[in-house]
Amino acid sequence: MSDNQANLKEAFRQEALKYHAYPTPGKIAVALTKPADSAHDLALAYSPGVAEPVREIAQNPDNIYKYTGKGNTVAVISNGTAILGLGNLGPQASKPVMEGKALLFKRFAGLDSIDIEVKHRTTEEFINTVASIADTFGGINLEDIKAPDCFEIERQLIERCDVPVFHDDQHGTAIVTAAGMLNAIELQGKQLEDCTIVCLGAGAAAIACMELLIQCGAMREKIYMLDRKGVIHTRRDDINEYKQRFANNTDKRTLDDVIAGADLFLGVSGPDLLTSEQLALMADKPVVFACSNPDPEINPEVAHNTRNDLIMGTGRSDYPNQVNNVLCFPFIFRGALDVRASEINIEMKLAAVDAIRQLAKETVPSDVLKAAGIDNLSFGPAYIIPKPMDARLLPRVARAVAEAAVESGVARIDLPEGYMAD
Amino acid sequence: MSDNQANLKEAFRQEALKYHAYPTPGKIAVALTKPADSAHDLALAYSPGVAEPVREIAQNPDNIYKYTGKGNTVAVISNGTAILGLGNLGPQASKPVMEGKALLFKRFAGLDSIDIEVKHRTTEEFINTVASIADTFGGINLEDIKAPDCFEIERQLIERCDVPVFHDDQHGTAIVTAAGMLNAIELQGKQLEDCTIVCLGAGAAAIACMELLIQCGAMREKIYMLDRKGVIHTRRDDINEYKQRFANNTDKRTLDDVIAGADLFLGVSGPDLLTSEQLALMADKPVVFACSNPDPEINPEVAHNTRNDLIMGTGRSDYPNQVNNVLCFPFIFRGALDVRASEINIEMKLAAVDAIRQLAKETVPSDVLKAAGIDNLSFGPAYIIPKPMDARLLPRVARAVAEAAVESGVARIDLPEGYMAD
Repeated sequence: MSDNQANLKEAFRQEALKYHAYPTPGKIAVALTKPADSAHDLALAYSPGVAEPVREIAQNPDNIYKYTGKGNTVAVISNGTAILGLGNLGPQASKPVMEGKALLFKRFAGLDSIDIEVKHRTTEEFINTVASIADTFGGINLEDIKAPDCFEIERQLIERCDVPVFHDDQHGTAIVTAAGMLNAIELQGKQLEDCTIVCLGAGAAAIACMELLIQCGAMREKIYMLDRKGVIHTRRDDINEYKQRFANNTDKRTLDDVIAGADLFLGVSGPDLLTSEQLALMADKPVVFACSNPDPEINPEVAHNTRNDLIMGTGRSDYPNQVNNVLCFPFIFRGALDVRASEINIEMKLAAVDAIRQLAKETVPSDVLKAAGIDNLSFGPAYIIPKPMDARLLPRVARAVAEAAVESGVARIDLPEGYMAD
Repeated sequence: MSDNQANLKEAFRQEALKYHAYPTPGKIAVALTKPADSAHDLALAYSPGVAEPVREIAQNPDNIYKYTGKGNTVAVISNGTAILGLGNLGPQASKPVMEGKALLFKRFAGLDSIDIEVKHRTTEEFINTVASIADTFGGINLEDIKAPDCFEIERQLIERCDVPVFHDDQHGTAIVTAAGMLNAIELQGKQLEDCTIVCLGAGAAAIACMELLIQCGAMREKIYMLDRKGVIHTRRDDINEYKQRFANNTDKRTLDDVIAGADLFLGVSGPDLLTSEQLALMADKPVVFACSNPDPEINPEVAHNTRNDLIMGTGRSDYPNQVNNVLCFPFIFRGALDVRASEINIEMKLAAVDAIRQLAKETVPSDVLKAAGIDNLSFGPAYIIPKPMDARLLPRVARAVAEAAVESGVARIDLPEGYMAD
């Protein structure tokens, strides 16, 4: 790193710390939505007036949505075992991330979101804790929980909770990745079911991405997933049940072995793990999503210099085609909560994928262009997925998800009339 | 009830429901305290900038107070087993009350407060749940948990949590009651240690009030506590360990037996349980706190007609001397959090009692008079305790509590310079 780069990095570090510290610590606060000035106001808000909504809820539990904030509230819950790319630093250290996620829920979808960090000794204790407090909220966003624990945690919580439970590191990533990849494949003139797919990384996000791509039409036997020890194949006995589902009946053992002729590469692993030589071996018109952040599996400039028939996405905002969960999670919860969905099922996830895909194919409004600092954007290799600040995401994704919830039978109420109309 | 009374009651009921339902359900929301407009803002608030405070907290856990909202956040936690005077209606039905309490924390002390309702099968499960999430918050206000479970719950949580845990139904009530009673006794020219005390009711609030009065100088053997079966005495074998501490070695069995000659009566029981005949039997210059709400143990007009040497308090805002927890809980948490107290100990509780007592003896500012709709208020039988809307409560009580925390060694930081100066 040059001196100048180091200075810029340190300046950004200081700015981020200052942002979090001043004028008040943190990023979110509680605000009152009702008058609380006079003694009469307080008699309505608390004793004796509050007894009336209490009685109404005791008589009919659905009244909780009428008289409390539950229906607009999402809890962001973590145990701090897999914080960003930083690892298992514990629940306390995860708090800025969870408060940040709460900020994004509010900023992008108007959802009141609070963070809960859970200290626990066993996975069972974590599950019990979250299940015990779940009814407080309209939905639960699990965050930064390490694999493979996150799979069992989510499975049990979905079963035990009456409100949607969604592990964003898995499904938010998978939905946005699938939307981008499907558009890229379409542009390359290929069919997903014909594609050979290499997935470098076998963590929560990788597994969720591949499971969702299979739901979208990818063939499981054409997927090669690699963990730190190489290709996951049927003769390995050192893999958990979640990786096991991707064990390929193959003699190939290394990235070199599987990259040759591959159509699609997804990296959710680490920096610089895909070489330009390996990229050169991929099939014609390849699609490469190098999502390791901040440093991708292959530098986009190197990649495009290596091949001009490539469509590429990364996790970075300073290159085209940023794969960013914020394209999905605020809106999938918005749609789910607005029809009081009991869960976020596969139909809703696929509806979100389609809505995001579709949006990238439409004319981009000038305010989105302005925010992105770009003169023109149109569907093509450098624009396969909407920009995070695109205000059309809220109505489009939320509506698609809410409609899918109603159609698939997990919504408790119908769509409000004219819901999220353009 | 007359037709007119019934109409007024129904109108208030409708107003309370409307207050809770419109324009948005509930009373509290989440607000952002930092800019979140540009992509740069979001890069500071979330990835990649948020990694910096995460690292700082991982290195030094105290940094959580510098970079997150923890130090200004209070969780209001209930299991809904003793909601107001309505009983065990479950966690969901308790939500409006908990949101109301959160509203009061914000309104009176600027604390960001959120509600958590806990579903559980055993007391142990409730304790484990709260202990698991406690580090998320700067303090925990337990609310509406039935006796005797609340005692063991609070005891274990105080032991297990690094942040203050305070069951307001017990200690908030006790602090405000003690402040009022001590001022009343002073006005009556008596000494607490000489007083015979009758406590009608033996629930969480009653027991906490009596324990705190003992800390203030009352003699345990001069206290007669009564539950539904009458006087709690040493030959009863049907009482839990918490009531047991008040078992009096006496032959007296009924309220009639103990009220004769008593100096102090505290009612935390039910409406109209103290008759004017019983009141007439009390010692000269009695003090009666009839705190059953909305209908006191004895109607204040009846009581004052029975005796003109009486000083009386109730839970109602439409009579003098309202015993209202809001005089204490926002400010005791404010003081505790501002010095990062690890607990709310007896020294802090007694400091709150003294600060509230002292305030009632000072000249009342005109804005407080105006808010109370009263021309004049001065320390005396009809004004023994400050009004809930008295803005001086915040600096006075918070400062007294914070100072007591520092002096008693439970504060983690010293008072900020000029803290809560008048």
